[in-house]
Amino acid sequence: MTTEACVILGNDPILLTPGPLSTSPQTREAMLRDWGSWDAAFNRMTHSICADLVKIVHGEKDYVCVPLQGSGTFAVEATLGTLVPRQGCVLVPNNGAYCARLIRILQRMGIAYVELALREDEPVSPAAIEDAFNLDSRITHVAQVHLETSAGLLNPLDDIAAVCRRHGKSLIVDAMSSFGALPIDLRRGGIDALISASGKCLEGVPGMGFVIVRHSVLQQSEGRSPSLALDLHDQYVYMEKTTQWRFTPPTHVVAALRQALDQFIAQGGQAARGARYTQNCAALVNDMKALGFEPFLKPEVQAPVIVTFHAPRDPAWNFANFYAAVREAGYVLYPGKLTQVETFRVGCIGAIDANELHNAVAAIGRALKRLGIRVK
Amino acid sequence: MTTEACVILGNDPILLTPGPLSTSPQTREAMLRDWGSWDAAFNRMTHSICADLVKIVHGEKDYVCVPLQGSGTFAVEATLGTLVPRQGCVLVPNNGAYCARLIRILQRMGIAYVELALREDEPVSPAAIEDAFNLDSRITHVAQVHLETSAGLLNPLDDIAAVCRRHGKSLIVDAMSSFGALPIDLRRGGIDALISASGKCLEGVPGMGFVIVRHSVLQQSEGRSPSLALDLHDQYVYMEKTTQWRFTPPTHVVAALRQALDQFIAQGGQAARGARYTQNCAALVNDMKALGFEPFLKPEVQAPVIVTFHAPRDPAWNFANFYAAVREAGYVLYPGKLTQVETFRVGCIGAIDANELHNAVAAIGRALKRLGIRVK
Repeated sequence: MTTEACVILGNDPILLTPGPLSTSPQTREAMLRDWGSWDAAFNRMTHSICADLVKIVHGEKDYVCVPLQGSGTFAVEATLGTLVPRQGCVLVPNNGAYCARLIRILQRMGIAYVELALREDEPVSPAAIEDAFNLDSRITHVAQVHLETSAGLLNPLDDIAAVCRRHGKSLIVDAMSSFGALPIDLRRGGIDALISASGKCLEGVPGMGFVIVRHSVLQQSEGRSPSLALDLHDQYVYMEKTTQWRFTPPTHVVAALRQALDQFIAQGGQAARGARYTQNCAALVNDMKALGFEPFLKPEVQAPVIVTFHAPRDPAWNFANFYAAVREAGYVLYPGKLTQVETFRVGCIGAIDANELHNAVAAIGRALKRLGIRVK
Repeated sequence: MTTEACVILGNDPILLTPGPLSTSPQTREAMLRDWGSWDAAFNRMTHSICADLVKIVHGEKDYVCVPLQGSGTFAVEATLGTLVPRQGCVLVPNNGAYCARLIRILQRMGIAYVELALREDEPVSPAAIEDAFNLDSRITHVAQVHLETSAGLLNPLDDIAAVCRRHGKSLIVDAMSSFGALPIDLRRGGIDALISASGKCLEGVPGMGFVIVRHSVLQQSEGRSPSLALDLHDQYVYMEKTTQWRFTPPTHVVAALRQALDQFIAQGGQAARGARYTQNCAALVNDMKALGFEPFLKPEVQAPVIVTFHAPRDPAWNFANFYAAVREAGYVLYPGKLTQVETFRVGCIGAIDANELHNAVAAIGRALKRLGIRVK
């Protein structure tokens, strides 16, 4: 297949997916030049990105940012491998596929863990975490997904951090789908590491992750990582010494993130980003309900990032056909990721506003009609 | 720092570095659209890239291509971790920094290795590898850097593969800086895995690696990787089953590589790419010699990818100042990476031809004059 065969004629589709997502033209245009990885201008750009990322979560006093090549999962594995000692034990509250992935990573590394099993629509309760601490004194760390993208579920991060602080447990947060969109304030204490990636709510393109980590905790982790490529401590120390990335950085992805962060700041930072996504989510849920769709989650635990809807019960329903029809209308949806119920997901993040969500749901309505699917 | 402060006014500098390198405008323009990672069109693109990469090295019969997020080093670590059993022992012929990195990776993973120490200007001899096999029967694998970018040194891959085949040792080749530019023919046998990355001689942008691996060898490696993110077997099986990447792919980097491969094929494939780089290298070396510079390597072991030059003995020499002056003239050079002698490097790869190298050396000449540096 040649490139031409990949190109869609007419408008590019809008991605209603939780990353990759639709980026702004300016962000993509930032990739129109090449950067040398040894060059001072490029390395100043990396440095400025890291400084801005730390500021977004108010970590200037005690935290540093370590960027890492690869997808967000690479940064998650790097954080666990670098920060958790071999004899540590990690509590993993589990209400979705990304929590389960934390467990798979720990299993591979041979690190002990305790799973706190939850339903996919049930946020972690701080009391359950406290109970787990009291039941199992081996626990040294908690690995917590802030926003479980499997369903779009919000876990109560501030309360979890408070419990961890009180019990002296080290809290590692997978904030992949929340960073930049939901308020996180590291000054409240309790969080040792916060992980996210370029292609999520900051609206960059995918290709790098980053970890905002407490400096004192990172300093104690020298030589601990079982991996060279995923050694956060080594990455940080090398970057501090040389200003450069240890291994070839994804230069164009970095430049796009710089541009995306400029827009993030100019638009009003996390508060404005969160407000826009909240409006997007409200428009989406409202219009989808009018079509007869029911959200999987209760409103009080629904984060304004991605919404899971129950699939229609109509025998004419087939996700692949529905997906194709909506895509033809210019919108890319996301399949469900739940284990028990048939669902599909619609993201409300990216460089889009509520108008786009209204248009998207209108397109969904036309697709249903064309396919002869009744929602209720 | 805002994006504006990062942008150079006037022409973008030409990168004379071994990746990131200067890409063509069409390659960069392929990043102007967003792709959904679940979308069939994107996954067909990944599939077509893998098929083309296998063809470049004539591996259609017995090999598959596994792409991986991150820099080339991530793919190297993934290959060693997935293919070498914990009780294996790896021979590493060492004539530069990238060979030394293989050893660091093996050390981290706790895999036994035997180092075959060489000078930085001395290619591996197949006889020395054979001696090592005879001396140490524990050796199960050989990890060989094809083109050592530290000096620009070419190791005799065909002869090394023949020895490995004869002795029944599994050969893993780091072909980071040679893939696409130098002839490699997997039909000759002896090679189990060949690793490279998007942002090297294929002239894509950095952000993904790939491994061309013998299918039968990959199939035997299930569950062996100590890392989830870097598990090549898992990545391959998931992709075969779903057509998708396991974790979020660097979509724009993938699209740029598809476009770069289209150009690679249209321009005449490896033979044409190798011929252009050979002309670039000849222009560079010839003009630099006319300025009085001496290449570090003998011509017969110099690969046409990156050339190491001895630094001038003049006390006025200072690499940082020289680098800055040449950069101001529009060319980005590369520092030396040798342990014993003071050198600097000039790459001759990327979307550039011999005219650009003539211009670059003219700029180097002007910079020397301006800085008052005598070469001889």
